[in-house]
Amino acid sequence: MHKPEIKVGLIGLGTVGRGVYKILRDNASNIECKVGVPIRIEKILVRDIDKDRGIDLPAGLLTADAGEILDNSGIDIVVELMGGTDVALNLVREALTRGKGVVTANKDMIAAHGKELFALAGERQADLLFEGSVGGGIPVIRPLKQCLAGNRIQEVIGIINGTTNYMLTRMSAEGLDFQDVLEQARKLGYAEADPAADIEGYDAARKLAILASIAFNTRITFEQVNVEGITRITADDIAYARELNYTIKLLAIAKNTPEGIEARVHPTLIPSTHPLATVNDVFNAIFVRGDAVGETMFYGRGAGEMPTASAVVADIMDAARDILRDVQGIIACTCYYDDLPVKDMGQIECKYYIRLAVTDRPGVLASIAYAFGDKEVSLASVIQKHTDGSKAEIVLVTHKVKERNLQEALGIIRHLSSVKEVCNFIRVEDDI
Amino acid sequence: MHKPEIKVGLIGLGTVGRGVYKILRDNASNIECKVGVPIRIEKILVRDIDKDRGIDLPAGLLTADAGEILDNSGIDIVVELMGGTDVALNLVREALTRGKGVVTANKDMIAAHGKELFALAGERQADLLFEGSVGGGIPVIRPLKQCLAGNRIQEVIGIINGTTNYMLTRMSAEGLDFQDVLEQARKLGYAEADPAADIEGYDAARKLAILASIAFNTRITFEQVNVEGITRITADDIAYARELNYTIKLLAIAKNTPEGIEARVHPTLIPSTHPLATVNDVFNAIFVRGDAVGETMFYGRGAGEMPTASAVVADIMDAARDILRDVQGIIACTCYYDDLPVKDMGQIECKYYIRLAVTDRPGVLASIAYAFGDKEVSLASVIQKHTDGSKAEIVLVTHKVKERNLQEALGIIRHLSSVKEVCNFIRVEDDI
Repeated sequence: MHKPEIKVGLIGLGTVGRGVYKILRDNASNIECKVGVPIRIEKILVRDIDKDRGIDLPAGLLTADAGEILDNSGIDIVVELMGGTDVALNLVREALTRGKGVVTANKDMIAAHGKELFALAGERQADLLFEGSVGGGIPVIRPLKQCLAGNRIQEVIGIINGTTNYMLTRMSAEGLDFQDVLEQARKLGYAEADPAADIEGYDAARKLAILASIAFNTRITFEQVNVEGITRITADDIAYARELNYTIKLLAIAKNTPEGIEARVHPTLIPSTHPLATVNDVFNAIFVRGDAVGETMFYGRGAGEMPTASAVVADIMDAARDILRDVQGIIACTCYYDDLPVKDMGQIECKYYIRLAVTDRPGVLASIAYAFGDKEVSLASVIQKHTDGSKAEIVLVTHKVKERNLQEALGIIRHLSSVKEVCNFIRVEDDI
Repeated sequence: MHKPEIKVGLIGLGTVGRGVYKILRDNASNIECKVGVPIRIEKILVRDIDKDRGIDLPAGLLTADAGEILDNSGIDIVVELMGGTDVALNLVREALTRGKGVVTANKDMIAAHGKELFALAGERQADLLFEGSVGGGIPVIRPLKQCLAGNRIQEVIGIINGTTNYMLTRMSAEGLDFQDVLEQARKLGYAEADPAADIEGYDAARKLAILASIAFNTRITFEQVNVEGITRITADDIAYARELNYTIKLLAIAKNTPEGIEARVHPTLIPSTHPLATVNDVFNAIFVRGDAVGETMFYGRGAGEMPTASAVVADIMDAARDILRDVQGIIACTCYYDDLPVKDMGQIECKYYIRLAVTDRPGVLASIAYAFGDKEVSLASVIQKHTDGSKAEIVLVTHKVKERNLQEALGIIRHLSSVKEVCNFIRVEDDI
């Protein structure tokens, strides 16, 4: 379809929206060279058109009326950056229904309503692109969908929440405890006033649902992801892990195994030599293993105004090219397998790090080892620490074992008279 | 264009060719789901159809007659994997002229003849895809062309030769010298009988020419890349670098600066904390900095049968989708700037590591420091080592300085009576 320009309707002008506006303005000539015609923002939908947004905008660009975008047949692409799943979902539905291309960075919406939206996009032959929804500026959705398309993907393992990665990095570098670092992260603006979505792992779980759906070609929803946050991680755990040559990261792990799909987010001990172990501060990385490509990793800034806007603008440019050539939907939804079963946590197998507070008397280790052995949990290494005269800690790393067995063993150990507390247990992935 | 299947003509059945054959065979149903129709290899052009290739092939698949591929109008995509720039170039020209899509992993051909071939592809509206030519299985060409398209790319810094990265990793881990490690690499099949293309940096330079052309939207040729290999790196240099918290890597560096483009391949000291510093063995990684996305990195296996085949198959699938929708050439050549100037090495600015063998007497350091100061080279750190009673080594790291000044200073220092030898000088990049 010949068009002299591609017109965009932007929904939302928060952090990422401003970034998109700046890139389309500042890199306009490069973008035109690559796409063939200029890309122009025609309207921006905001709640309050009088609010100062710290950016110079031409008069008349802002509107509080969604109809000015949805009912404007001149607008080719709707870019949804308001977030949330209520109003945004309705606007995206309306845009797709009218055959407009949609670009979004809304992970909540894609993770919860992806199936419906992709079906609608397919029916209307409209692009629905969402690179910005996972990993900020890091190219990962398109690489998975296109560059690695010849592979059967076996594993996707990501550090995909910058807030928690910043916190674990600081805890590790400075020996600080969870609450202190959370305070730091709040001051730097990395953590929200209500940090639950980050520190409880929900944000990472939504992103994992999106990545796993693409990687394994079957729909994985947020509800199917097993989630555990970083609130129980202490400076002691990090120090013990280091002694064992491990680094603790909040990993989002998806594996395609013969017994079913694993989709889980939890703190994890990984070998300090693994490329993911050196991904620090607010950086994100997604490690992918495919049957042909082997191990590959994508690294970068997982959030922020300009990185996320970089991903959104790339999607806008792709949608523009598709519109100009009348081939929207060329890379459509690839969930061509019916919903495959997802394992519950009891079924997964891995190694475990366990920290126990025990009484300091002879035979303690023997009784613990007996309980593990009884549940077929075998131990790979043991560190025994005396914190003072009467208190002692035992840190164990198991061999690979079913989580159900491990939990049963811990259930028994918890009631041993010599065990004061099961302080923590953390999964260990060392064959990634 | 509706087609019941996409037919591929394969040129060359070496390591990567076999990998492509295996992926298209083993992952056929997934590939069909993603593309919409099956992809089938119709003919494979080889020199000797009777040679045993260690793979079961249907009768009649092999041919020694290029016409059976080029003149078969049923063949949609030609996949060139024979390598070299003579026969391969002609066959690719012929395939494009006939409007067939072309997929290649031939870095030599793309680096030397890219301009002509992309012009021809544009004229015939044919896809010319080459993801496998750089970084093996690592998605980097398409991410640069599409996922980061909204950015002005400022830097591309790659570890893009597996042989030399393996060698430097072993030298670093085991304290071995260059010749011993080269012997190891030969035994493992990582180094060719004639290893010049790897150890002299030419292979990396060809790949850098390709990456820089895409990143900066202007044609950079192999001849414009300043190249220096790793043959002068010793175990001593690696040990001194470590003492200074640096790691030595053979980097391929392209920068877009206001004064011109830098395109250079040379051993480089980088901070040991930089993500590139932990890219070890035969792994490759490409670090990209864009004005919006910031720092991003792509990591994986840079060579080998299946990784490179992974990239080639992805390109075949993309070409197939484009053919089915009649939109070949949708992401065409993006060198829309006329050839921009490339700096010569004298014009670049960086820090330098310098190792000098000196006589062990008072005033040596003063005379050296004076010579540097006279050429406006200021020193950041100095290590003085006495290797025995009379011999001594001085290791210096400069502040940032024009290479021309550094070379002039070294010209003078070389002739100081107290300086026995300028043992080595290596560029340092610590603001990447």
